[in-house]
Amino acid sequence: MKHAQDVKQWKIGLLGLGTVGRGVVEILGERSAILAARAGVDIRVARVFDRSWRKKQDVLGDIPASDNADDVLNDPELDVVVELIGGLEPAHDFVRRALESGKNVVTANKALLARHGNTLLPLARKHQVSVGFEAAVAGALPVIRNMRRSFVSDDVSAIHAILNGTSNFILTRMEEDGMDYAEALKLAQDRGFAEADPTFDVGGFDAGQKLAILAALAFDTAIAEDAVIVEGIETIRHKDLSFAAAMNRVIRPLAIARKFPDGRISLRVHAAMLPADHALAAVQDEKNAVMIDTSNSGPAMIMGLGAGARPTAAAVISDLVFLAGRESGQSQIWLSGFDQPNPVTEFEYRFYLRFQTVDRPGVLSEISRILAGEQISIASVHQYEGAEPIDLVVVTHTVDEAALKRALDSIAKLESILAAPIWIRMKEEHQSGEGDSGSSVLPGADGRG
Amino acid sequence: MKHAQDVKQWKIGLLGLGTVGRGVVEILGERSAILAARAGVDIRVARVFDRSWRKKQDVLGDIPASDNADDVLNDPELDVVVELIGGLEPAHDFVRRALESGKNVVTANKALLARHGNTLLPLARKHQVSVGFEAAVAGALPVIRNMRRSFVSDDVSAIHAILNGTSNFILTRMEEDGMDYAEALKLAQDRGFAEADPTFDVGGFDAGQKLAILAALAFDTAIAEDAVIVEGIETIRHKDLSFAAAMNRVIRPLAIARKFPDGRISLRVHAAMLPADHALAAVQDEKNAVMIDTSNSGPAMIMGLGAGARPTAAAVISDLVFLAGRESGQSQIWLSGFDQPNPVTEFEYRFYLRFQTVDRPGVLSEISRILAGEQISIASVHQYEGAEPIDLVVVTHTVDEAALKRALDSIAKLESILAAPIWIRMKEEHQSGEGDSGSSVLPGADGRG
Repeated sequence: MKHAQDVKQWKIGLLGLGTVGRGVVEILGERSAILAARAGVDIRVARVFDRSWRKKQDVLGDIPASDNADDVLNDPELDVVVELIGGLEPAHDFVRRALESGKNVVTANKALLARHGNTLLPLARKHQVSVGFEAAVAGALPVIRNMRRSFVSDDVSAIHAILNGTSNFILTRMEEDGMDYAEALKLAQDRGFAEADPTFDVGGFDAGQKLAILAALAFDTAIAEDAVIVEGIETIRHKDLSFAAAMNRVIRPLAIARKFPDGRISLRVHAAMLPADHALAAVQDEKNAVMIDTSNSGPAMIMGLGAGARPTAAAVISDLVFLAGRESGQSQIWLSGFDQPNPVTEFEYRFYLRFQTVDRPGVLSEISRILAGEQISIASVHQYEGAEPIDLVVVTHTVDEAALKRALDSIAKLESILAAPIWIRMKEEHQSGEGDSGSSVLPGADGRG
Repeated sequence: MKHAQDVKQWKIGLLGLGTVGRGVVEILGERSAILAARAGVDIRVARVFDRSWRKKQDVLGDIPASDNADDVLNDPELDVVVELIGGLEPAHDFVRRALESGKNVVTANKALLARHGNTLLPLARKHQVSVGFEAAVAGALPVIRNMRRSFVSDDVSAIHAILNGTSNFILTRMEEDGMDYAEALKLAQDRGFAEADPTFDVGGFDAGQKLAILAALAFDTAIAEDAVIVEGIETIRHKDLSFAAAMNRVIRPLAIARKFPDGRISLRVHAAMLPADHALAAVQDEKNAVMIDTSNSGPAMIMGLGAGARPTAAAVISDLVFLAGRESGQSQIWLSGFDQPNPVTEFEYRFYLRFQTVDRPGVLSEISRILAGEQISIASVHQYEGAEPIDLVVVTHTVDEAALKRALDSIAKLESILAAPIWIRMKEEHQSGEGDSGSSVLPGADGRG
């Protein structure tokens, strides 16, 4: 047994010196004495791969760098490889080779894990090494560690999360500042949250990859990213947030994973109207949050900054400290199952529907006839005066989604309907994943038309 | 190196078979296969000490039990002692002996750590063993682990927390159900949250002990529990919550730790009025929450159930899994400093003040003269009609607390004042510890009298 004051040396090889990689080098430089004192580890960046390392001498200092990844991957002195390149290839190849050569890996690459986690995690296990990926989901928020560790003796029944900061920023700015969608998206782009092509974020795909990773840990089984059903927020307009506010609700971009008593799993990303006092309603702007329902520990929520160079670098370093202190070959929390889940595709929610119609009597009658034909019961209707297109808002009772989609398809074909219908699911429960029925309706609903 | 599929055996000795101890035995029994699969550890309760173990055969089964703690403390086969007795003695003596004999310790005992953590943690370090105490603060919420580990490379500047479930339950029931204090306390007692003598909870002492533990980890220095300045919630009445609601605020029982740029630390437990959209406003009933402001990772919040047998037992087990996977003598995160901080005792807040007065003209004039004499500036005044005592509510601008206390002492001596003045601090900032000035005032404030 070593003396506790002994400081363990750990050498890392860094792949990729972008903003997060730079953050890792900087924090390790600034905080090495603190990490030695607090955790008994001395973590040094021993070697760096970056194609343009020559332009980054300011942060590199004396650290040897190369534009050939082999110089890192073939170095037998390294304890861990930190992959911060992103994307599928060559990151996948590099991570695979690092694991096969017996090196631990820490990565922030959600796309890689969502696509190849099912093979990379067993590969790590085979070679007695670990993969740390705290930084891949919700940046600085310790959701991976807590899912794998704090709730290790629990059964997770549901996750309700806000995993895409760009989408949440857009919806909260639309709500708070009265912006419309395009304006809020522009602001997100100006602030550097949103990419020039925002589809990956606002279309729900980014959140879908993160949800696949979280759900795999939560439900202890491999999950392919295409098992996640994804809807974006692009159709939501400022008036939908106004209607929501009139019902004392807010709209948030949710990622929801549920395990049903029969073992089936549902994984979905879509916007939802939440009661204004719901815990996830307090998650604003670019913040992320993960709410976990467990059997023993009850619902718990973690919220904070989901992205950014420094927060993500701090998460990478927390993985390094954890791996450095771990006994070799032990205490890696792995997935015990690798069956593909049987996904649930039927759901029951109440729905907010907004139709843009011509301004003439009888429109509501046409719409309500089609809804009735699919056994969809209306809780309230609000029809607004003004120039065409007129907004007709319908809040349903709990419906079968497949029936609703059929009804919306029929309604969209009516001559009196001027644009594709908008639909947003409504969640009633306060801070748990159970129950999706309730009674809140738009005030002043009067069913004219 | 062992093969990864090897399962590590860990034998625990359990001191105390109350509700949490029973939860630990039950969960380990139910979940042993899961823990072996997920974490590679086989954790068995090998020996139990409980004075009335004979009455608890239902949960003990074949586990050897004794009413002599020496049978646990002297057993050389045990890897860890789990202390779930509570209180200072004999728990302190047992934990000290366990550490001295080279056993790891896991405990849920906040009183023990707040009083003796400053000697027990160095003792553990000396004997190359660890103390796990995730369950001591905020039950199932992984706040200890995250403070020690996820933010290991960060500087924590502030903690804002709700650490006492009983106080939070009372204030939220007063707010939601229109109950007065005594009625909400009775409900908390009926539901088993509050003790027959609730002083430890509602007086802020429980939260004070927990805050001392959290702040020691956050600021990396030993903190004595009597360094925490504590105020209770006993003086708050339903009408204070109504006045808060009129300002779009809620009242929550906060525990606040701050580190100032000059290195001084302030530690306080008191009720505060928060904006209704503050993240801590969404923390209702018996839930706990801890919001951490850090240098690299930004503000992060963890919320969920802070107490209960199963959540606390799950936290104990997460500590056991963590310790079992740790390399001996390594990766224990300890406190690097043991200097007593220089506590800050001057603060500046805006204050809500409520005076109960006789119904005659001139009362406001007397009160405002005394406030002005202490340089305390009034933001708004609201005086309510009705039977004596009349409520006179004053919201101040930012004040020096010492000056305010002097003014309140003088005002309390006025003939026209019928009861001790009520004061509640107002926090303005949204989700961070910085800044305590703002402008929200009671609507309709008109300064009559």
